[in-house]
Amino acid sequence: MIWASGWRLASAVSDAGGLGMIGAGSMYPHVLEEHIQKCKAATGRPFAVNLPLLYPDIDKHVDTVIREKVPVVFTSAGNPKAWTAKLKDKGITVVHVVSSAKFAAKSQAAGVDAVVAEGFEAGGHNGREETTTLCLIPEVRKAIDIPLIAAGGIGSGRSMLAAMVLGAEGVQMGTRFVCSPEASSHINFKNKILSSLEGDTVLALKKLVPVRLIKNSFYEQVAQAEAEGWPAEKLSELLGRGRAKRGMFEGNLEEGELEIGQVSAGISELKPAGEIVRDTWAEFCEALNKPLF
Amino acid sequence: MIWASGWRLASAVSDAGGLGMIGAGSMYPHVLEEHIQKCKAATGRPFAVNLPLLYPDIDKHVDTVIREKVPVVFTSAGNPKAWTAKLKDKGITVVHVVSSAKFAAKSQAAGVDAVVAEGFEAGGHNGREETTTLCLIPEVRKAIDIPLIAAGGIGSGRSMLAAMVLGAEGVQMGTRFVCSPEASSHINFKNKILSSLEGDTVLALKKLVPVRLIKNSFYEQVAQAEAEGWPAEKLSELLGRGRAKRGMFEGNLEEGELEIGQVSAGISELKPAGEIVRDTWAEFCEALNKPLF
Repeated sequence: MIWASGWRLASAVSDAGGLGMIGAGSMYPHVLEEHIQKCKAATGRPFAVNLPLLYPDIDKHVDTVIREKVPVVFTSAGNPKAWTAKLKDKGITVVHVVSSAKFAAKSQAAGVDAVVAEGFEAGGHNGREETTTLCLIPEVRKAIDIPLIAAGGIGSGRSMLAAMVLGAEGVQMGTRFVCSPEASSHINFKNKILSSLEGDTVLALKKLVPVRLIKNSFYEQVAQAEAEGWPAEKLSELLGRGRAKRGMFEGNLEEGELEIGQVSAGISELKPAGEIVRDTWAEFCEALNKPLF
Repeated sequence: MIWASGWRLASAVSDAGGLGMIGAGSMYPHVLEEHIQKCKAATGRPFAVNLPLLYPDIDKHVDTVIREKVPVVFTSAGNPKAWTAKLKDKGITVVHVVSSAKFAAKSQAAGVDAVVAEGFEAGGHNGREETTTLCLIPEVRKAIDIPLIAAGGIGSGRSMLAAMVLGAEGVQMGTRFVCSPEASSHINFKNKILSSLEGDTVLALKKLVPVRLIKNSFYEQVAQAEAEGWPAEKLSELLGRGRAKRGMFEGNLEEGELEIGQVSAGISELKPAGEIVRDTWAEFCEALNKPLF
């Protein structure tokens, strides 16, 4: 959710009864601080911050969420042992994102309060096991006894119920919220998602860090390079710096990196974030009442 | 289900109340005929035959299922227009296997009675879109109004319910039944599945036909070749002939091809096929009665 989930989206989701989340991965420390303060001013409800642990200035981000008394922190892309104790010591609820049952168990052992298990269909950075949400959730359920939040492939109330039938207590939705006016993603990117079809996303750059993105000119260069067997260093040069920002924030649909999940194929309209929360909840309740289609 | 699903497995599944299926992809025409006749003798219940339409002697297989009055035929890996009319003309129920909503709609237009939509997590041959079952089923549901059967990632009553919450009327399970005494798969292969862990299967050979298999020595050679950018022809030579038989039927775990789905990671015991059907149904009923975990 980099370049997508700032204070506007997070506060709108929280206001509607979800747990809105600020994605800190694309923010300088002072920018994160500003977003947290604006989010607090915009909603009286709890919200969360996602901290990718590989972020170069992660210690500054951690200081910021502690200083600002952010109630919930989701950590990802790193070792849950690194920061969990410090955050929990300050009364912060800590949730760690994993892509396998093995790391779910390690996260529980590291003392986190809950786990997000994210499947192969999710947008952006992704696990190397390529386990889909349908296969991942039952295995993680067996591996941990703390709360389990399913992610990847969830964009509706019915898919929310399906994930909970498999053993999750809740769900995390990203892609669906990129298609809201409150997301800071460029309108070109939002429109690209709305017009995208099945098979339009792909998990690429597996020799670096696997990332799910929409196929475009940039991806075609990557695919060609991968088919020719380029080593990681050369792929890294091709990727360069700032690709994600160029695509998702600046709206360069050809040369930018467009990270999004597989559910993008089923999204056909922009919708206010609060409405997404309410519609998802309504569909979930209806499906729970009548599970068979 | 090649080298796995002969008359023993099919009749055991049908006897227990499922729709057992003979996989014709690994059978010579006279072998298929023998399996159909033995299946009829072993069970009075309906069963099906799966016909991969790219099979070289497909016309002989079609003649066999018509002559033997097989009640249901599942067609896969090919154009549903090719044989549907002929089969239906003989009173056979025809179900076509797809991996996208687009081909589900084409199958409906071709006159099939139902569609199997199979996700990325499924074993063996797989679609190029890499859409997971969780994302695929809702899109296929929107695209067709004939019955929809979900496949890929389903190995329990809870995952069966999850697929039906997403819009399927039924499910097709393969991997779980390979781990039954009735499957003709080699015991080495069955034991390999029982000991396999998450991340142990991978979708490989995408330059030929994508196939999900267990990582072994043969796969390591493929992975190395793919990382080096070998063209399709050289990969085809590396694959050679008879790899699947060598692995799954003859039990050569190092040099054979071991096709299986991602749910293999969650399977820890061999179980009679009838018991699998009954346990799955019981868990499904329990989950339907109490959907939240």
